[in-house]
Amino acid sequence: MSTESSAQAPTAALLIIGNEILSGRTQDANLIFIAKYLGGIGVRLREVRVVPDDEAEIVAAVNALRARYTYLFTTGGIGPTHDDITSECIAKAFGVPLIQHPEARRRLEAHYADSGLLNEARLRMANTPKGAVLIDNPVSTAPGFQIGNVFVMAGVPSIMQAMLTGLGDRLAGGPPVLSRTVVCAVPEGTLAAGLGAVQAEFPDVDIGSYPAFRLGQISTSLVLRGTDPVRLDAAAERVAALVTDLGGTPEIAAG
Amino acid sequence: MSTESSAQAPTAALLIIGNEILSGRTQDANLIFIAKYLGGIGVRLREVRVVPDDEAEIVAAVNALRARYTYLFTTGGIGPTHDDITSECIAKAFGVPLIQHPEARRRLEAHYADSGLLNEARLRMANTPKGAVLIDNPVSTAPGFQIGNVFVMAGVPSIMQAMLTGLGDRLAGGPPVLSRTVVCAVPEGTLAAGLGAVQAEFPDVDIGSYPAFRLGQISTSLVLRGTDPVRLDAAAERVAALVTDLGGTPEIAAG
Repeated sequence: MSTESSAQAPTAALLIIGNEILSGRTQDANLIFIAKYLGGIGVRLREVRVVPDDEAEIVAAVNALRARYTYLFTTGGIGPTHDDITSECIAKAFGVPLIQHPEARRRLEAHYADSGLLNEARLRMANTPKGAVLIDNPVSTAPGFQIGNVFVMAGVPSIMQAMLTGLGDRLAGGPPVLSRTVVCAVPEGTLAAGLGAVQAEFPDVDIGSYPAFRLGQISTSLVLRGTDPVRLDAAAERVAALVTDLGGTPEIAAG
Repeated sequence: MSTESSAQAPTAALLIIGNEILSGRTQDANLIFIAKYLGGIGVRLREVRVVPDDEAEIVAAVNALRARYTYLFTTGGIGPTHDDITSECIAKAFGVPLIQHPEARRRLEAHYADSGLLNEARLRMANTPKGAVLIDNPVSTAPGFQIGNVFVMAGVPSIMQAMLTGLGDRLAGGPPVLSRTVVCAVPEGTLAAGLGAVQAEFPDVDIGSYPAFRLGQISTSLVLRGTDPVRLDAAAERVAALVTDLGGTPEIAAG
């Protein structure tokens, strides 16, 4: 359900680049971190795509998503090996040359000065589209970059997290998304009619219903999300009353 | 990197439907299961999208993806509550009416016969696009469905897994994707040039390089994927020799 508040807030998409996700080798851990972080600063994550290490696929997805959302974040494909092609693809998507970024090169030279390990492959990590601004990498030096509304980050979760949380006021957010959760043992099919009525009454609150089955017991989590704590509390109380009316025992939690 | 073998194999996309993934409330567990299962039967997962519970978004994604890949799988949004709108959206995407599927209704009636819990909301789970074929749900009865090349499944992982693995020969696969992994402590920036040369020599093998940092130690996993075990072994031996040449100790594992 779309909400009035989300229509005004900045939006975002995430593009996860990497064969290892599509093959099932690697469990993505970046989506959930990025989703929560963006929610906390009032940016709505509206779409995620996962594409392989394939130039045409990456360029097409970047151009589709950057045109559509306030921000586009990418993860993966900025390392030193042959399968790391994100920087070239972003340059193609923007129609600008790929250059060696002087400050990125300086950082890599300083980082590898003692070990003497800076070679041609590692220098590829200094390449950015012309006009890009670096994103700091306090974990392993090789930077990400921003061009336009696109933020290009590493795929390794610890590095991605340091890059994202270091962006600070380069991301303009909106009102943070708040949530309330009502947990009960009433099956969602029993709650559905009443829950739909509460949703209709609170169009500014997103209400989701999530069943879980544990040890043979049904647990239903009713999650309410929105930006106005007063409206959220009012909607959560309506949902809790519905649960009680149906013979259940609601537990309300913030978040 | 695209490969010769993958150009001939059936392809698939996955559409994950649900606000709970985009808000970061829920960690998706379906992508990795579906990716591995499809790889095992020789279907290449080529793209994943996550979209909110929003009709226009779902319809657009379904039509884009079903036209492009051999199969489209969807997860989520087929329960009884107001935020479960997948079935209606699939019908709109195909331009066919949403009907109450007689066999789906019969199964729900039988399932809820003793409890008397079958209500209007739960009966929504019998709705399918006209022309759909049911997908069995041995966990909780309410079925998924297939229409054309689109397979509509539940979002709850245990139910989705039962639905997918029960499809049997409704999915035509290709040669299974096999893999070899060479693990070493040589940093990927040191391996990059030699690795690129092996990739160039084996265009029918996908070679990916994945660094990890654990307890201050670098571990690099070089993953080789393809359909021909002889070529895979040959490529893995070349990669292992490269690691040895660079002073490392390679460990080769199948998978």
